[in-house]
Amino acid sequence: MKLTILGCYSATPRTHTNATAQVLEMRGQTILIDCSEGTQVQLRKAKIKFSRIKHIFISHLHGDHYFGLIGLISTFQLLGRKNPLHVYGPVGLKEIILLQLKAGKSWTSYDLIFHELSSDKPEQLLDAEQFTVETIPLKHRVYTNGFLFREKLGPRKLVIQKAVDNQIDTAYFNKLKQGADVLNRKGHLIKNKTVTQDPEQPKSYAFCSDTAYNTDMLAQLHQVTVLYHEATFLQEHEHLAAGTGHSTAKQAASIAKQAKVGELILGHYSTRYDSLELFLDEAMPIFKQVSLAQDLKNYNW
Amino acid sequence: MKLTILGCYSATPRTHTNATAQVLEMRGQTILIDCSEGTQVQLRKAKIKFSRIKHIFISHLHGDHYFGLIGLISTFQLLGRKNPLHVYGPVGLKEIILLQLKAGKSWTSYDLIFHELSSDKPEQLLDAEQFTVETIPLKHRVYTNGFLFREKLGPRKLVIQKAVDNQIDTAYFNKLKQGADVLNRKGHLIKNKTVTQDPEQPKSYAFCSDTAYNTDMLAQLHQVTVLYHEATFLQEHEHLAAGTGHSTAKQAASIAKQAKVGELILGHYSTRYDSLELFLDEAMPIFKQVSLAQDLKNYNW
Repeated sequence: MKLTILGCYSATPRTHTNATAQVLEMRGQTILIDCSEGTQVQLRKAKIKFSRIKHIFISHLHGDHYFGLIGLISTFQLLGRKNPLHVYGPVGLKEIILLQLKAGKSWTSYDLIFHELSSDKPEQLLDAEQFTVETIPLKHRVYTNGFLFREKLGPRKLVIQKAVDNQIDTAYFNKLKQGADVLNRKGHLIKNKTVTQDPEQPKSYAFCSDTAYNTDMLAQLHQVTVLYHEATFLQEHEHLAAGTGHSTAKQAASIAKQAKVGELILGHYSTRYDSLELFLDEAMPIFKQVSLAQDLKNYNW
Repeated sequence: MKLTILGCYSATPRTHTNATAQVLEMRGQTILIDCSEGTQVQLRKAKIKFSRIKHIFISHLHGDHYFGLIGLISTFQLLGRKNPLHVYGPVGLKEIILLQLKAGKSWTSYDLIFHELSSDKPEQLLDAEQFTVETIPLKHRVYTNGFLFREKLGPRKLVIQKAVDNQIDTAYFNKLKQGADVLNRKGHLIKNKTVTQDPEQPKSYAFCSDTAYNTDMLAQLHQVTVLYHEATFLQEHEHLAAGTGHSTAKQAASIAKQAKVGELILGHYSTRYDSLELFLDEAMPIFKQVSLAQDLKNYNW
């Protein structure tokens, strides 16, 4: 999986910082998560091809998470897109987008398919050949979902030399990758494990923004490879976090620790603080594998 | 008058170019004209104080002219704005903005006053103490207005030394500025013109984007000080201009010439051309006082 942070600050776009948007590349798919104002310019800066984006997931209808969507949809149209686009987000999003397309008499020439969300329980949104996506209900001021992306277990890895040594015909190689035992050219049964290795462990990514401290999601987050958890505030402003449906860096680290995730990325910083290092200082003693999101930073795992 | 170009390209924001937005400063007022995606960041770069903007004029409901408005309105709210904001634009704009505020449960704490436009004739939108604003109906694919900003004639300029020499009491100075004759300390009538000079000629600015070549507006544009006229295409693509409700640089220059304006600014360039100088080359032979808009460029007159 490869994650590109397009924007990771809260509230408003500024001269050198952007509000929430990210791109997740996974098993050949390019997925956009949230789409703040300016996302299309950030996509250009990150050199991500617009046409590769087929799925967009919107967490909630606060502007710093979706005001760039109508512009991106319009730009897709201007660029002559033909591929369908799937947009997943709260009920209401479709009406907002269609109203603006209608006002501009600018219907898309591609299929624009909305999947509107309203459940307060986790639900599976996508069951693709190589991965799944499900919602993570979050606690915020308006209806909000995080998203959990899970790779499926891939095929077993064929050790070609061993298959050759065992005189297995290449016609059986796909069967071997599926885990089957096969007959070799001499009619002997070759046990699958003799010539294959276990596939790589499937990776996962959980995006949780915006949310108050919320232990309800621990079961879903259990042992995910990477967790992005918002940390709008520091602990000194815990009361502000509680009042606005946000979290502190310490709370984000606590969730990461309890869920036993592999790595924690912090983001959605309030701009009131002088240094982002303060977020790291607060989270690190609780959960060591933590890093700070930055606009245009990449993560690979 | 001072004009700051925030963005002057057509269609979409790109890494180094912005779609239409401008700030006009006139007699102590700061006015925003159009508001493409990214306008709030451009305002920051131009160091224009958000709180000074009390009037926003939106030409039409194509995204490259208004997709930044909802973000700006939301940011005003986050910055604690108290002053009322007046938004002038086509019918439909209010519904689009209010729907998004409602979805985010983020009503403004300041008065947000919409003036929705639907007339196809010029109409006066504002009659302030020192200036007026009227619509210029344009020809485009959707309902579109340009805007004409006119300073009112200011007070006469008092020549203080002459007033003192003529023994006029300072209590009469305001009367003199209004053009009245007054009695001096000896009871003699002093003719106004003896101690005052004519006020500066009022300046004007016409914003015309987006529009096809349209001679209907010549009467309104007659002798305006500065005209901003879109030039999306070069003459070689006149057929594209006609088909999309846009103008060529040559057509813009022709309008400027026929209307006998003082100065022409071109903008709204398509990004298909290698050099903007081509627009200048095409317009200059027809109308000499022409310049190219550029993002963050200022004009004073």
